[in-house]
Formats: sequence, structure tokens, C-alpha cells
Amino acid sequence: MSTSAFTAVAQRARRASFDLALATRATKDAALHAMAEALLERSQEILTANAVDLDRARSAATPANIIDRLRLDDARLHAMAQGLRDVAGLPDPVGEVLRGSTLANGLELRQVRVPFGVVGMIYEARPNVTADAAGICLKSGNAVLLRGSSSARDSNAAIVAVLRDAVATAGLPADVVQLVPGETHESVKELMRARGLVDVLIPRGGAGLIRSVVEESTVPVIETGVGNCHVYVDSAADLDKALAVVLNSKTHRNSVCNAAESLLVHSEVAGQFLPRVVEALQGAGVTIHGDETFANFDGVVTATEEDYRVEYLAADIAARVVGSLEEAVEHIRTFSSGHTDAIVTEDLGAARRFTAMVDSAAVMVNASTRFTDGGEFGFGAEIGISTQKLHARGPMGLPEMTSSKYVVTGDGHVR
Amino acid sequence: MSTSAFTAVAQRARRASFDLALATRATKDAALHAMAEALLERSQEILTANAVDLDRARSAATPANIIDRLRLDDARLHAMAQGLRDVAGLPDPVGEVLRGSTLANGLELRQVRVPFGVVGMIYEARPNVTADAAGICLKSGNAVLLRGSSSARDSNAAIVAVLRDAVATAGLPADVVQLVPGETHESVKELMRARGLVDVLIPRGGAGLIRSVVEESTVPVIETGVGNCHVYVDSAADLDKALAVVLNSKTHRNSVCNAAESLLVHSEVAGQFLPRVVEALQGAGVTIHGDETFANFDGVVTATEEDYRVEYLAADIAARVVGSLEEAVEHIRTFSSGHTDAIVTEDLGAARRFTAMVDSAAVMVNASTRFTDGGEFGFGAEIGISTQKLHARGPMGLPEMTSSKYVVTGDGHVR
Repeated sequence: MSTSAFTAVAQRARRASFDLALATRATKDAALHAMAEALLERSQEILTANAVDLDRARSAATPANIIDRLRLDDARLHAMAQGLRDVAGLPDPVGEVLRGSTLANGLELRQVRVPFGVVGMIYEARPNVTADAAGICLKSGNAVLLRGSSSARDSNAAIVAVLRDAVATAGLPADVVQLVPGETHESVKELMRARGLVDVLIPRGGAGLIRSVVEESTVPVIETGVGNCHVYVDSAADLDKALAVVLNSKTHRNSVCNAAESLLVHSEVAGQFLPRVVEALQGAGVTIHGDETFANFDGVVTATEEDYRVEYLAADIAARVVGSLEEAVEHIRTFSSGHTDAIVTEDLGAARRFTAMVDSAAVMVNASTRFTDGGEFGFGAEIGISTQKLHARGPMGLPEMTSSKYVVTGDGHVR
Repeated sequence: MSTSAFTAVAQRARRASFDLALATRATKDAALHAMAEALLERSQEILTANAVDLDRARSAATPANIIDRLRLDDARLHAMAQGLRDVAGLPDPVGEVLRGSTLANGLELRQVRVPFGVVGMIYEARPNVTADAAGICLKSGNAVLLRGSSSARDSNAAIVAVLRDAVATAGLPADVVQLVPGETHESVKELMRARGLVDVLIPRGGAGLIRSVVEESTVPVIETGVGNCHVYVDSAADLDKALAVVLNSKTHRNSVCNAAESLLVHSEVAGQFLPRVVEALQGAGVTIHGDETFANFDGVVTATEEDYRVEYLAADIAARVVGSLEEAVEHIRTFSSGHTDAIVTEDLGAARRFTAMVDSAAVMVNASTRFTDGGEFGFGAEIGISTQKLHARGPMGLPEMTSSKYVVTGDGHVR
């Protein structure tokens, strides 16, 4: 891929973004419905392309779980279409007045939500992200440059071709949805260095992908998703609730970023709680990597510091007894990825101290870490979960996909 | 400077930020008042240090305008102290509930403003920025790592020593205000690569400084200040207002980022307006770098494309006649730095089209570009003017110096 191929695509995206920024909600919603219909009408085209990706993956002896993530079928295409319709149903963030006043000199000041312009998405495996990201970007007024994994290249190309046609029939420029051209890492590098052409970059995938984007990008990045989440069972916890929250946080779905990876138990309740939680977790097939107190139980593996640091994304949990809430907070400050951390307690003061001291995107009180999710929070659509502090933190819905500008109106005002 | 010296400082800042994040408004305001008093009580100490910087600058044949920016005196110290008191008078952004709801399952969701944690400031020349930045960061709950220019090193060290003592007397950790140790560029590099220890980096200074921080930093950056600002005089402009706005935008103070650098005039009013604006600008000592129409006037220099691109920060302006509002927008999209662009028009439709199509931090209608300023906007304090789209755009006050987190409270809720 030559430099000019990427630059040409990015410039087309920029140009298209000017029109999209001015589009009304009615036009954008019509485009989203057209996109949903087109995915279903042309499903055969997409499934044929997907079969090519699947064949290639099987030839390369790709693990079954990756192949499953790559696979599309009618049900998944229907879910993608429904996702686009759901986004059409959400309010348009663009044009919202965030703040406004009349200044002492009579100038009228308004801060108005506007699209970013051009958003770059770098993501792995699942081809459904292609449609999800295109829909969220379109509704928030942003042109999108999509860079999926090469394993899904035929599926992504087919989905984007279908979506672009649909966008055009709704009267918007097809170039608001584009694939980053080229297969090599060079094209990703160009995307990451396209400051001025691309306004924001959102990586979605494993920790390695996200780290490399953060390190190499000069385009502003929104970091998403790595979750080393903790559940702390306080001395004042209701132990039935604690057991339910720990089990749900760890075992409801262990491959996702909001699953718990570490359990901290106050020493005052360890005697009562440890036998119950060890039995329940092991009964659910979870391997416990515990400190010396946990290690007294059969089947518990002795934890190393690495166990406290790692995001297992598997049926494993690190576990440790702490002497106080403050020691739990200190542990979380040291090891948490700042995604979601939870306390189980009936004590209001403990809840207040924990929520004030733990600085993570979401802090749960007597609730499973699994609730950190755009859908659960009622945002209707989610482009990812930000674990950084700049711009957006936690689940990112449509408003988080916008910037703002000040519009100041006078009558010949001068200083 | 060794790696460990910087890391030690940054870790102390991080540790101190935990306490500061929990401090009440009363404590923070007491610290700000103590800082203001200390600047005045210990002014001799600061002025003595400043004299050392001034001597060194004179020996190095530093230009007079830079020496003036470096110079402190009683009036400037009083202004610094007043700035800190003003910040004490502003509402505390920390703890503000930005959004909240009770979810369908009864979970209580609140999005609460929290400090970033540790803010890095890299800035040039003026030692008053040291006190301003320390005050704004403290009030917004952030520990700050200050990296001023080496030309101001004695002044900055004296100011920081005074501020740290005052912070400590108010019962907050002195380490919430620290200088980045070391004189070499290495220490700036360490600051820029301290992702995880430093949450946000704000460069304030010339375009070169800002570009290098954006290019090299892995810490999230808020880009500030470069302003290639335009005034577009529409065919429906009131030409008296247009003349006032152009003159004020260019000549009120030409060394600042919100000064106008380019003038665009609709061809329909060029015949009437050009003689007046050329005479007025030249009368105010401004050199006009004009297109062929402007170049018909005596003293107008023929503009090159570089003139449309440059931020003069001087008594120079680029000038061009355009055939339509759309051509003006196209020029602005090509050359504007996205800081402030203005239209002068009496036509509502033209104003609406211009404000919708021009994507800059501030878009002015019948008002001078000079109004883009935290003080003018009524924010009370300003850490800089963001020209990027992520997180904050336009003048940044206290709320822009914060992040948020979600606090979710349940009663043993699981998915």
C-alpha cells in the first residue's frame, strides 16, 4: 500500500464528514434503517464472503473460539441489523446545547455538541463490530475508517460494500464508511500518524493491540477495555450478597473485560466467608490463585504478584485476605486497570470511603462488576468502555462520540 | 537527572493526589488563600530569584520582549495572588453529579466529576503561569508537575517553594505542587513517557513546543493555543461593524492566539470595503499580505500560500477576496488552526450556514475573535485554550480539568 492510497481514503472521509456533520437526524436515521435492511437483503453476499474467511482460518488451524467469533449466520446478521435500528431510535447527540449564557456585554454564548469529524477504529476478529461501529459513528455524525483484523477481511469488505450502498441510497456520501486500504501493518501505522486527517482513534481488542496504538499514535486515542476488576468483601458485608456478587462477577461470562479477576476479603469475615466462596467458585470450575490463607484450602494455587496483575479472561481468580478497607484500596490502586471495582458492604461509611478512594471508571456497591456496560447503563449503544480519564470514561455511547464548539453571537462586539 | 529522580517525584505526586482528591472545598480554598498570602509575604525571596533569571537572560542577549515576559515585580506578584484568590472563589468542580438515573433493575447510577489525578504542565517563559497552573490544578483536585522554561528556573523554584509551604500549612501534602527535576530535555521526555503515573499533559507555548509534545508523548495531551484565526466579511455585512471587528481582532493585541491572522472579504462588498479596511489597518501599523485585488492598494504585499497558513502573532494580516460564503468556508477549512473564526453578516441564513460549516473551537458572529478567552467567557480561570476535539475544546476552566467516574449502588444485584 502506498502512502497516497491511505491519504486518499482519509481525505475522502474528511470531505464526506463535512456533509455528514450537517445531516439532519431524519436523514441519518433513514440511512441507518437502509443499512439494516441491506444487511438482510444481501445476506447471501456477506455469508459467502464470511465462508472464505472461515475456510482460510480453518486452513491456518485457528483455535475454535476465534473461528466462532469470526463466524456469521442469519441470527448474527439479524442482530447486526437490529443494532443499527436501535441506534436509529436513540436521540441525536449532535446540536445539543451543553451550556449557554448571555455575557455581561450582551454576547450570546452557546456550547454546542458537534461530531469529531473522522474516527478511526482498529479492532480484532468479530465482523459484527464493522456494522456496530459504522452505525454509531454515522449517528454521531462521524465518518469512520475501519481497520478490522485480516482474518475477517472478506467479511468486512462485504459488509462495508453493503453499508456504503445503503448510505448512498439515503442521500449521504458513501465515503462516511470506509475500510482502511491494504493488508500490512504499514496501513495501521499511517492511520495512527494521520493527525489532522483523523480526529480520534479507538482501538478495540486485546491489551497488546491497545498498548501498541497508545504508544505509536499521534492521533488522540481513546483507550478501551482492559479490565483487571476487583470485588472487595468488607467486614460489614452481607455474606449471602457477597457470595452472589463474587460468583456473578467471575462466572457470568469470564472472557469479558468487566468480569472480576481478583477477590479481596476482609480478615474479620475470612473465617466465615472463605469456605463458602472457595466451595462455590471451585464448584463453578474456577481455579483460585490465593494468598497463604486461601492456600489452606484444597485446590487453591498459591498466588504470585503476577496473579494480582493479570487479566485472566478465563475461569481463574486471584484471591487475598486484607486487614482493612484501606488495605483493599491500596491493593486496588496498585493492581487495578481502572475499569470496574466493587465493594460488598452494609456499612454506609465503608461504601462512601471506598467509592471516594477507588479511582476507576466504575465503582460498584453491592453489585456485580458485570454491570459496567453501555446496554446495562441504559445508553442504548456502546462503542467500547474507556479506561482512560481524558474525554470519556466508562461505557461510551453516542454523546461520548462527539466534541463541542462555542458559537458566540454579537452585534459588532469588540474588546 | 536519573530516571529515578523523575519517577520519585511523579510517585510522590501520585500519592499526594490521593489525599487531594478527597480534600473538601473548604480545605482547598484555605490552601489557595494561604498560597496567595505567601506570595506577597515572601515576595522578596521571589524577586531576588527573579533577578538572577533576569541577569542570566541579559547576559545571553535575550530579546527585550522575552525579558519583559520573564520579569516579576510587585504588581505582577499581586496579580498572581489575586488570581489564586479568584480561583478560591470559583465553585469546586469535584463531586458534581453529571448524570444519574435509577436503572430498570433498581441499580442507582451516578456519574460524578473526579480529578484527573496528576497533571503535567510544560510551558515557556512567564513565571506567573507557575502560580496560575498550581492554583487551577489544586482547586480541581489535581497534583501538578510543573516544567517551566530553563530561563525562568530560579523564579519558578522560588515560587514553587513558597507555594508548597503554604499548601502544607493548610493541611494538604506539599507534593501536590512540584517542579519536574533536572534541566535537560531528558526530564521532559520522561514526563512525556510517564503514562500511568501522569494522567494528562498540557503544553503551553509556541507551535514548536506543542507539536513536539504531541508527537513524543504517550501520556494523553491536551493541545492548546495555536491560533490562525479568520474574519470573514460577508456580502450582507454591516461594513461599520465589519471594520470594527476586523480592527479589534487584528490590533487589540497581536501577539496572542485569538488575534486574527487572515481577512476574507466577499467580492460583492470588496469595492466598498477594501479601501476602508486597507486604510484603517495600515493606519494602525498593520502590514497586509493580500491577494491580487488587495495588492492593487499601495503598501499591500502580495500574499503567498504560506501567508494564509502562518500564525503571524505580529502586526501582519493575510487578506483575500472570496466569491461566496462557501469559498470562505473552504479557505477556513484549508488553513484555519481550528481556534476561532468569525463571520460579519446581518443575514441570518449566512450566519447559520457559517456556524454550522466552520468547525473551530469558537465561531463568532459579529464579534471580535479576541473574545475566545476563559475570562471573557465568564469561566473565571483558564489553564489554556484547547484546539483539539478530544475532552475539551476552547477555553478550559476548572470543569475541563476533571474526569468522571460512575458510582453504581445496589443491594446484591447480579446479572
